[in-house]
Amino acid sequence: MKIKIATNCGFCFGVKRAIEIAEKQPHSITFGALIHNQKEINRLQQDFGVKLAESLDEIKSTDTVIVRTHGIQKDDLLKLQQQGVQISDATCPYVKKPQKIAEKMSEEGYQVVIFGDAQHPEVKGVVSYASTPVWVIKSLEELKSYKIPKKIALISQTTKQREHFFQIANYLIDYGYEVRVFNTICSATFENQDSARELAQEADIMIVVGGLASSNTKQLFEIAKMYCQDSYLIEDENDLNPLWFANKTFCGITAGASTPDWIIQNVKNKISTLKSLG
Amino acid sequence: MKIKIATNCGFCFGVKRAIEIAEKQPHSITFGALIHNQKEINRLQQDFGVKLAESLDEIKSTDTVIVRTHGIQKDDLLKLQQQGVQISDATCPYVKKPQKIAEKMSEEGYQVVIFGDAQHPEVKGVVSYASTPVWVIKSLEELKSYKIPKKIALISQTTKQREHFFQIANYLIDYGYEVRVFNTICSATFENQDSARELAQEADIMIVVGGLASSNTKQLFEIAKMYCQDSYLIEDENDLNPLWFANKTFCGITAGASTPDWIIQNVKNKISTLKSLG
Repeated sequence: MKIKIATNCGFCFGVKRAIEIAEKQPHSITFGALIHNQKEINRLQQDFGVKLAESLDEIKSTDTVIVRTHGIQKDDLLKLQQQGVQISDATCPYVKKPQKIAEKMSEEGYQVVIFGDAQHPEVKGVVSYASTPVWVIKSLEELKSYKIPKKIALISQTTKQREHFFQIANYLIDYGYEVRVFNTICSATFENQDSARELAQEADIMIVVGGLASSNTKQLFEIAKMYCQDSYLIEDENDLNPLWFANKTFCGITAGASTPDWIIQNVKNKISTLKSLG
Repeated sequence: MKIKIATNCGFCFGVKRAIEIAEKQPHSITFGALIHNQKEINRLQQDFGVKLAESLDEIKSTDTVIVRTHGIQKDDLLKLQQQGVQISDATCPYVKKPQKIAEKMSEEGYQVVIFGDAQHPEVKGVVSYASTPVWVIKSLEELKSYKIPKKIALISQTTKQREHFFQIANYLIDYGYEVRVFNTICSATFENQDSARELAQEADIMIVVGGLASSNTKQLFEIAKMYCQDSYLIEDENDLNPLWFANKTFCGITAGASTPDWIIQNVKNKISTLKSLG
């Protein structure tokens, strides 16, 4: 069985940067999961003593706090500053942009619309920067229940699919008058998506590796399924099921932006041992 | 043969308004054709003595000048004002908006992109309000030769098709970063287009009535052809060819925004006399 890893996949710029920040500050605390990959978070804890706080109460004023890649809510950042802790900001620069846009556009009287998942920490963070109520929509369908005003600013969660973003933009352009569309989908997201799309068209089995809470991994899985019926989402090599590979000749592997190389390699190596089933 | 006139077609708000302005000012001069319909212009000349000037040299300081529905270039307006003529502005309010947008967006450092025909007076007028070079593109294909900057303002000629506008917006959103999309397609345009689309799906012959220089008429003709193979573009009833109607059972009629009712009625009446061929 041929095995191929997608040309673009795995760690993105923002995740690499966040991990470097964490590694340089042993015994610091991340406020929320630094990235959406539990194995890598475990590694940082074991090798660098980087701990995880889920609430502000767990943080002492003597701590060094690392702000997670997805960013945090404006109020939480203010509270941390007031607490006098040392703050190291690992918010991805591509996430800081939509935060600033939401702030500015709401100040200028635009209805801010975010294409994203309201429960995702990145989106919660972006929403918190707006001074007026924001519409967070998961799909075009959700948007159809709103009365569209004349001035709209549209932002995307950084990990969404372009095609869905366009559909939403078109609807707003059709019903609105001025729509300020900010293409805040990050380049790693669409490069990884393009590579996954390409590979899934060749492969007869696709393995998508990533954290279960990872938005961009979910998008990759959706795209893989679209082109390759036998697509599977796994966290690491332990989730692989040898039966999936029976009679398969070409296995494609892609991985979310928070999946470290060592996990991708473990997955590849494990699949290699299953060759005989092919 | 059944004959049906499209639910929405013919004179739009801006054209009606311009004609009222002209009728109230007999012996005035329009700078450029008031609307894109020669027969109606002839009527205004015969019944109200409203003349047509093609250049500024033909205008005297004692004249009352009517600014055409499509608007004129900023410099020409300034020259008229300096000449001290009395100016009556019949520019359609829906055309004034893109003029103001082009002015403001170019001042704010956005690359202004107009989806439209560079030779059309409306577009020439809008372009003249920008203080920086404007890209006028007729199609998505033309846009592909440009390097897309980060800040873009997109405007449409008022008479373009929404679907084509969306395609252009999507391309800019994909390659740019912030795209301010102003949906300046006027409501009469898309209401007429929707009605034409609907009727063309039922009819087995479509007659599109309008001036040959009229942009919105051309769009209606394009749409009619898409759904009804036997579609014909005519200026008035004299262009009708009885042979077109042989074996036809349902004739749909639509008309551009500058086509007066009396021409539409003449066309309908003439077609009625051809019934016997059906």
